[in-house]
Amino acid sequence: MGISRRLFITRVGQLGGYSAAFTMMQSLGLLPIAESAAQTPMPSNGKGTTVLILGGGIAGLVSAYELRKLGYQPILLEARSRVGGRNWTIRNGTEVEFTDGTKQHCEFDPGHYFNAGPARLPSIHKNMLGYCRALGVPLEVEINSSRSALMQSDKLNGGKAVEQRRVVYDSRGHVSELLAKCVDKHYLDQDMTSDDRERMLSFLKQYGDLTPDYKFKSTERAGYTVYPGAGTVTGQPHDPFPMHELLSAELWEGMLVEDNVDWQATMFQPIGGMDQIPKAFEKSLGSIIRHNADVQDIDQSDTGVHVAYRDTRTGKSEKVSADYCICAMPLTVLAKTQNNFSPEVKAAIADSKYDSAYKVAWESPRFWETDFNIYGGLSYLRQTVGIVWYPSWGLFSPRGVVISGYSIENGTPFGALPTPAAKLDASRRAVELLHPGYGDQLTKPVYISWGHIPYNLGSWISESGRKDSPDYATLLKPDGRVYFAGDHTSHIVGWQEGAAVSAIRAVNMIGTQVGQGAKNA
Amino acid sequence: MGISRRLFITRVGQLGGYSAAFTMMQSLGLLPIAESAAQTPMPSNGKGTTVLILGGGIAGLVSAYELRKLGYQPILLEARSRVGGRNWTIRNGTEVEFTDGTKQHCEFDPGHYFNAGPARLPSIHKNMLGYCRALGVPLEVEINSSRSALMQSDKLNGGKAVEQRRVVYDSRGHVSELLAKCVDKHYLDQDMTSDDRERMLSFLKQYGDLTPDYKFKSTERAGYTVYPGAGTVTGQPHDPFPMHELLSAELWEGMLVEDNVDWQATMFQPIGGMDQIPKAFEKSLGSIIRHNADVQDIDQSDTGVHVAYRDTRTGKSEKVSADYCICAMPLTVLAKTQNNFSPEVKAAIADSKYDSAYKVAWESPRFWETDFNIYGGLSYLRQTVGIVWYPSWGLFSPRGVVISGYSIENGTPFGALPTPAAKLDASRRAVELLHPGYGDQLTKPVYISWGHIPYNLGSWISESGRKDSPDYATLLKPDGRVYFAGDHTSHIVGWQEGAAVSAIRAVNMIGTQVGQGAKNA
Repeated sequence: MGISRRLFITRVGQLGGYSAAFTMMQSLGLLPIAESAAQTPMPSNGKGTTVLILGGGIAGLVSAYELRKLGYQPILLEARSRVGGRNWTIRNGTEVEFTDGTKQHCEFDPGHYFNAGPARLPSIHKNMLGYCRALGVPLEVEINSSRSALMQSDKLNGGKAVEQRRVVYDSRGHVSELLAKCVDKHYLDQDMTSDDRERMLSFLKQYGDLTPDYKFKSTERAGYTVYPGAGTVTGQPHDPFPMHELLSAELWEGMLVEDNVDWQATMFQPIGGMDQIPKAFEKSLGSIIRHNADVQDIDQSDTGVHVAYRDTRTGKSEKVSADYCICAMPLTVLAKTQNNFSPEVKAAIADSKYDSAYKVAWESPRFWETDFNIYGGLSYLRQTVGIVWYPSWGLFSPRGVVISGYSIENGTPFGALPTPAAKLDASRRAVELLHPGYGDQLTKPVYISWGHIPYNLGSWISESGRKDSPDYATLLKPDGRVYFAGDHTSHIVGWQEGAAVSAIRAVNMIGTQVGQGAKNA
Repeated sequence: MGISRRLFITRVGQLGGYSAAFTMMQSLGLLPIAESAAQTPMPSNGKGTTVLILGGGIAGLVSAYELRKLGYQPILLEARSRVGGRNWTIRNGTEVEFTDGTKQHCEFDPGHYFNAGPARLPSIHKNMLGYCRALGVPLEVEINSSRSALMQSDKLNGGKAVEQRRVVYDSRGHVSELLAKCVDKHYLDQDMTSDDRERMLSFLKQYGDLTPDYKFKSTERAGYTVYPGAGTVTGQPHDPFPMHELLSAELWEGMLVEDNVDWQATMFQPIGGMDQIPKAFEKSLGSIIRHNADVQDIDQSDTGVHVAYRDTRTGKSEKVSADYCICAMPLTVLAKTQNNFSPEVKAAIADSKYDSAYKVAWESPRFWETDFNIYGGLSYLRQTVGIVWYPSWGLFSPRGVVISGYSIENGTPFGALPTPAAKLDASRRAVELLHPGYGDQLTKPVYISWGHIPYNLGSWISESGRKDSPDYATLLKPDGRVYFAGDHTSHIVGWQEGAAVSAIRAVNMIGTQVGQGAKNA
């Protein structure tokens, strides 16, 4: 990657950015191909084997689903009255309570929602798409990129927001012109044959939309000041922004978001909210799930795993035992349990650092559609709030929910804002900067900060706490009869797909163990 | 434009490519801004004024809709039993008859369809989106670009198709590396300040996903040989294709389609087929439309316009008169009528050359989704059939309709194929080249060739017959009481938006004329 992912995610704040190929794990000497094969559940006879699953996020739900399929008897403990974990859709009536006791009550119009956690399903995330198919969760296109969306920097266009298409195609035009100049002047003759030289010039002319003499004058790709029309109305392209201005504006991170492999079209979202996925798992799993079961103590012996939990409705302590355990709780929450994990595992859990991502959502008339031709997609700013994300659902309807602000709070200017009110102000200001005169149309704000959400205490494991650390390797191994799952045991952190493959991996490891036990007996 | 549009449209065959800013019209000395304003219908009292509209394509329908709104009495003559013109959706039971008498009967499964003519609504086409809003036509996203779609050239990857993401991001990586090298070696110091030099290097590192020393080694944007997974499975990026190979493959036209301003995300399609638009107009206009009215003779006097048409059901000749006429027929069809147009107008009509675009559609299991992760979008090949277009409707359902082949027939290798059977073979071969082993899953082919469709006789006016020709200017002026409309009187040829703005323009010209007449009286 050309830029640090942490920088990337901090600046443009995309939920779930860690799909990078972490190379440190190769030093463990395990063959990637064998592991890859292991992610497809293998036939296994789990009959009679009980497995406790701690945590009803995607990793826990997939674990239960796959174990049941293989004949195991899974029992899933979930602290909340709902499953899904970070997969959480906020709609009318949702209570948002922070760890400090602060409460928000969502009053959106019926049918309106936003996904507080994951909000996108890339089509290359085959396991998640597969579960949506299997569970009958209907999907619709999530528009992750719209060329009519806006970009704003105080250093570009006098601070006035511009359509993304101008930044994208003006930049490419300048790059192409500069390279064509070097090729034309024979600066790169050592790098290419004379045939390729001609082909390269021809390509750059198309790539950058250059004139026949390889100049970048303007491009209709960047849109028009006058759109082509009937009769004598010819299209009037914009004058390009000078490269100097584009370089100063530094809008690159936002511009390049769509190029990340996990953010490339085609992307999806479940119709009606991302929580349709956990709801479908919940319906399928039925009594396997025990809600309101707040895990307090994890104690394993040579013969089984014994978990004590508090029933959050009655306040009573309950106990449950099983042959094996898949622990799919956030490490931040797991760290607060009593347990008899090995010192190595305890340390790995305690060492883990989590980021705290936030989102601020507002209900509003869809001025971005009616007055700006923006249908879905994201606008980017070089401001305290750097992202405005338009809904892909309910297009063309009168009102919708727009997210203004989505990034990491820890160590960022947004996180440093002193009060929730100041954060809402920054959020509204971003919309006002992009859409002058419309900021005051925003109503019914909901502010989610994952670091302050009970039973999450963070959005995802920090890359900085993970890279070059032996803790990751530690949590890949079972601790006795306890197997760890969750996106933090995958290389697709912050994505549901990471949780899914980590669960399949844990199930397969138990399968191998059970198979070995059977053989040994 | 860096490449000829005709070349562009011939090679990659996009329906409706002529949104370029034709500059020749500026020589007419008419102010674009005044014209632009004229495209918004002005208040006008058309009470009592009758207007004959010839042709029930989008231009005719919009003319009738706008005239009625202004109080005129429009009468629309349409030769077919359906309106819409090129806006034509083929589904179960549709009869396709060519001018040579050849008939095809579509036997797709119920609910399956393809749009034989326009199939995309760009979000920047405000008039068409506005009519969809006003008429209550529900829209869904048309996926015009998918990074998992494929590209195939015999000169790339040994002829084996590759994901579009590899061509897109490998090309950008090489371009960035080459330009960074020139910047780094101070070849471009005359073009930028030293500050910009540093900024440019930093930008190129991100733009191309270069190493810290500005080399392009590989990029996860191009996808993986092993996708990142759980545990120790790290992502394994592809080795990039050498620039030489990419240059030889010449896949640029396909790669750059999405950059054309009219093809940029977000795009839409009506749910259930593009013909939901003309159907909604039809319902709204009611008895204003006379179906099966094949115009034979257009005769105008000082006081009105008199049209004779053949009722195609009875074979009888009928006559109708009105104060004014908007002629929204294809010029190819208009050329066959009797009329008393001026010699100049007759010549302009006779001179017009039309392209003949084609599409070949097949019903098939959705192997592109299940086995290739392709959801919508287009694949491109350097072959006789250069486009495979996947449906954006019915995603995740078992079967669908895929278009294999969409381009211009006139003067192309596809057009030169001797028989319909040879054309179907070429179409099937394109799918087989992209998706080896799947070609034989294609069934129920439908082949549309617009040059051979009665009442169309072409897909759109050729750019080559239009540029630097006075004919365009001739048809912008009314011939007495007859006003011309249709995308051929706009700068958005081949798009419904062009038809719509041309109709609004004609309506406004009549409004001005009627207003003048009233003042003079």
